[in-house]
Amino acid sequence: MRWLSFYRDSEDAKGPLAYKNATFGYVVRDGEAEEGVVDAGKRSQFETLKQAIEENALDLIVESCGQNPDFSLGEIIYAPTITQPNKILCIGLNYKAHQEETGRGGEGVPTVFTRFAAAQIGHNQEMLRPKESGALDFEGEIAMIIGKGGRRISKEAAMGHVVGFGIYNDGSVRDYQRHTSQFTPGKNFSATGGFGPWMMSADEIGNLDEMEITTRLNGEVMQNAKAALLVHGFEELIEYCSLFIDLEPGDVIVTGTPAGVGAARDPMVFMKEGDVIEVEVKPIGVLSNRIVDG
Amino acid sequence: MRWLSFYRDSEDAKGPLAYKNATFGYVVRDGEAEEGVVDAGKRSQFETLKQAIEENALDLIVESCGQNPDFSLGEIIYAPTITQPNKILCIGLNYKAHQEETGRGGEGVPTVFTRFAAAQIGHNQEMLRPKESGALDFEGEIAMIIGKGGRRISKEAAMGHVVGFGIYNDGSVRDYQRHTSQFTPGKNFSATGGFGPWMMSADEIGNLDEMEITTRLNGEVMQNAKAALLVHGFEELIEYCSLFIDLEPGDVIVTGTPAGVGAARDPMVFMKEGDVIEVEVKPIGVLSNRIVDG
Repeated sequence: MRWLSFYRDSEDAKGPLAYKNATFGYVVRDGEAEEGVVDAGKRSQFETLKQAIEENALDLIVESCGQNPDFSLGEIIYAPTITQPNKILCIGLNYKAHQEETGRGGEGVPTVFTRFAAAQIGHNQEMLRPKESGALDFEGEIAMIIGKGGRRISKEAAMGHVVGFGIYNDGSVRDYQRHTSQFTPGKNFSATGGFGPWMMSADEIGNLDEMEITTRLNGEVMQNAKAALLVHGFEELIEYCSLFIDLEPGDVIVTGTPAGVGAARDPMVFMKEGDVIEVEVKPIGVLSNRIVDG
Repeated sequence: MRWLSFYRDSEDAKGPLAYKNATFGYVVRDGEAEEGVVDAGKRSQFETLKQAIEENALDLIVESCGQNPDFSLGEIIYAPTITQPNKILCIGLNYKAHQEETGRGGEGVPTVFTRFAAAQIGHNQEMLRPKESGALDFEGEIAMIIGKGGRRISKEAAMGHVVGFGIYNDGSVRDYQRHTSQFTPGKNFSATGGFGPWMMSADEIGNLDEMEITTRLNGEVMQNAKAALLVHGFEELIEYCSLFIDLEPGDVIVTGTPAGVGAARDPMVFMKEGDVIEVEVKPIGVLSNRIVDG
């Protein structure tokens, strides 16, 4: 099953804090060839996907809300897959080739920084290049979504705490990322974190190591790697993060980007108005965002 | 007026994610010498202090809920002043003497890292020293709480966006803070971020530069400084943070710690079970936490 958050109309999607207005649902067949969405925010007692995950209610919702779509996929406006996670834990420098191109990382433990919900956008929403910088860069990543919370979770138990995987573009404003030692400003410009179009459950994905990230800028492949190349794998990330903090349902771990980012190229490639940046993660789907000056 | 979040009983205060059960209120006179708390979570339509701030309803709540306390101050269990901020923006290396003792900082812009709500505790709650580390350190700080949200707020307009100030102990697990370049793990161990006992409104504080931090470990003064010594002052922090992200009501900016932290001493001083760590910010009050192995 594919789960998503969305806006019913463009009025709900307006403004930088629109994420608070989103509803949620799941994808169903809509006629022969088309797909549609059941509006679970209307048809169930839950308002957000995070709430439904907290109550472990996804199966129950499908059972009670059925297979008749309320919207076609073309009608909705996508919101960030999880609109208000309690935590977005981002992992840096987690592919060897990306460590090499940046000359950083390799400490033997994950590099963990964070993103705020207010910096996220959904699939097909505009990614804003701030007027303060010309250095907006892409980072295609696999997002792991926590289903069952916990502390000090072992690697062996880790996958039992995951409800699904999604696609992330950890859009980075490079000069602000390097203002000081801490990445926070460059990783938290409004409307730079693409998260969508949906979350796919782990069992539907099959072999997690075979998940494959491809980032395309205006159609040209910029990044490509399989999850097997993660330095710190999914289980280890859960073990490390839950060692210090209680993971909660709906928390998002953004697992790191492969080599090929714009800032490591010669000459450097930064995104500009009109560019289209796509992150495909097979077999989940494609997250696409157009760059707009903002 | 002093505003706070609290638990009505010890059952509500149990467990690492208890912060979701807190109510809120304000301090009133209770008899001649005593002080008490009005339970605004019961007597108003709002459930949390953050919600009340979002709706700009603090004055209205006092008007409608009155001056008769529901509890004495001794009866309540303090929760983190803001239990579920959308953002906790922590500022590092923001006093010159602290830059000097650590040999870091001084880039000309604020160093910004983050803390999660799940890592916070209230006044008088136990601060947990994790079994994974012997390097739990204190950092007394002034917390600034956003009342009115906004983006790209100028220094001149900044104070109009602040609803009040509180007291923070940015408890830091030093070895985990230095696992990699990013501070996140060491700044986010469960039950290490003390925030309380309450928030005081800016107008009640008077001259903000005269606010004075004193951190005491088992009664011995470890840190002392006035807010006038902040490298990046309150207005500048709002300007810088709101440059990249929309500030929202209830957001917390933890403004930095003075010199005197345990890790910069010779020999180093780390906290152990049974220690009592107090952060006083004049004229707001005293935040006290006892260390427990956890």
